[in-house]
Amino acid sequence: MDSRTRMVDTTLRILRSQGVRATGINQIVRESRSPRGSIYHHFPGGKEQLVLEALRVAGEAVAGKIRGALDAHADVAAALRAYIDGYAEDIRASDYRRGCPVANVAMDAAATSPAIRHACDEIFAGWAAPIARRLEREGRRPKDAAALAEFVISTLEGALILCRARRSTEPLAGVAARLETLLGAGGANGVGGSGPRTGARPSAAGPRRRGTSGRPR
Amino acid sequence: MDSRTRMVDTTLRILRSQGVRATGINQIVRESRSPRGSIYHHFPGGKEQLVLEALRVAGEAVAGKIRGALDAHADVAAALRAYIDGYAEDIRASDYRRGCPVANVAMDAAATSPAIRHACDEIFAGWAAPIARRLEREGRRPKDAAALAEFVISTLEGALILCRARRSTEPLAGVAARLETLLGAGGANGVGGSGPRTGARPSAAGPRRRGTSGRPR
Repeated sequence: MDSRTRMVDTTLRILRSQGVRATGINQIVRESRSPRGSIYHHFPGGKEQLVLEALRVAGEAVAGKIRGALDAHADVAAALRAYIDGYAEDIRASDYRRGCPVANVAMDAAATSPAIRHACDEIFAGWAAPIARRLEREGRRPKDAAALAEFVISTLEGALILCRARRSTEPLAGVAARLETLLGAGGANGVGGSGPRTGARPSAAGPRRRGTSGRPR
Repeated sequence: MDSRTRMVDTTLRILRSQGVRATGINQIVRESRSPRGSIYHHFPGGKEQLVLEALRVAGEAVAGKIRGALDAHADVAAALRAYIDGYAEDIRASDYRRGCPVANVAMDAAATSPAIRHACDEIFAGWAAPIARRLEREGRRPKDAAALAEFVISTLEGALILCRARRSTEPLAGVAARLETLLGAGGANGVGGSGPRTGARPSAAGPRRRGTSGRPR
């Protein structure tokens, strides 16, 4: 791992467990075992630039996992269940130290720059977008699909906070079960707003089905 | 305001905008304009005791608002809509600086004591409890009611994070609309788990109805 990558990785690891205000350049220097001058060489913008880069990496990693789960599952409910199961495993493996770096940074919004706040906003939107697209393909109206996808992201971020307080992944499991009902059957239960459009193709994603259990393991 | 209350209030105000790790006793001393010795006189347990006391105050304040909204509205969906509307107003009024102190502290779970983490868990449970009780009265099974109430708390906490990142209360408004559909009609849409029990009294809360708009203003 080159030294620039190591600095970003260290920043990201720190931001998983604490907010941006508590994170100082000294801690990044120390934990990445980088000379201070080297950090400013790679990141002339200092802490802000490092945080933005760490957020970008985290945002893309999560977006990739969400897209991967959607690609591997025929319906959005099963995809989210698989994504959430994997996420719960990560949290347990980290002994509940590992939170969402984007949420941790957004929490400190008052203490961060407009650029950082805006990056968090864009990342959340980037996570919701593929879910919204899939919901549209399942027959939801674009506006409903977007609102429902944002609801999913909100719910997951909140459940993660409850998990860390309880040192249990129960809240995430509960949310997964609830979302499965909420999103299942292409919105046929009517909770997704106005329900499927007339002429919707509820099995549009069918050909890619790789199983019905919703678990890729 | 006596000096002890001022110290707790200051701690709470600070924890609304940042995590517990970033919050030092020096900042509390400075911002509450209290002599350092006086803080340790009132709070021999130092920062941990102050944080616990601030969390207790915040937890009770929110629980009181939730109970108040439930008392003022015939159905849980309208009550939550009223609560969320008020909360969105608070956030806007604070120019998006005001987050949830309990979530901010829980986010820093890895950096806090088991006592603080446990207090956060208990507070979240205390917010969900009156919602769960009302959902039971609306005909849900106890287990479904509890799971759905926890889902509501997760969703609100997550939406708040998105609001702060976007500097907009749109995510909360979106969540409110979605929860209204999800919780409306006493769970008749089946998304609340197994739906209403046989013999449910969907209008049990009817006599207290003060209007149907769901908005107490």
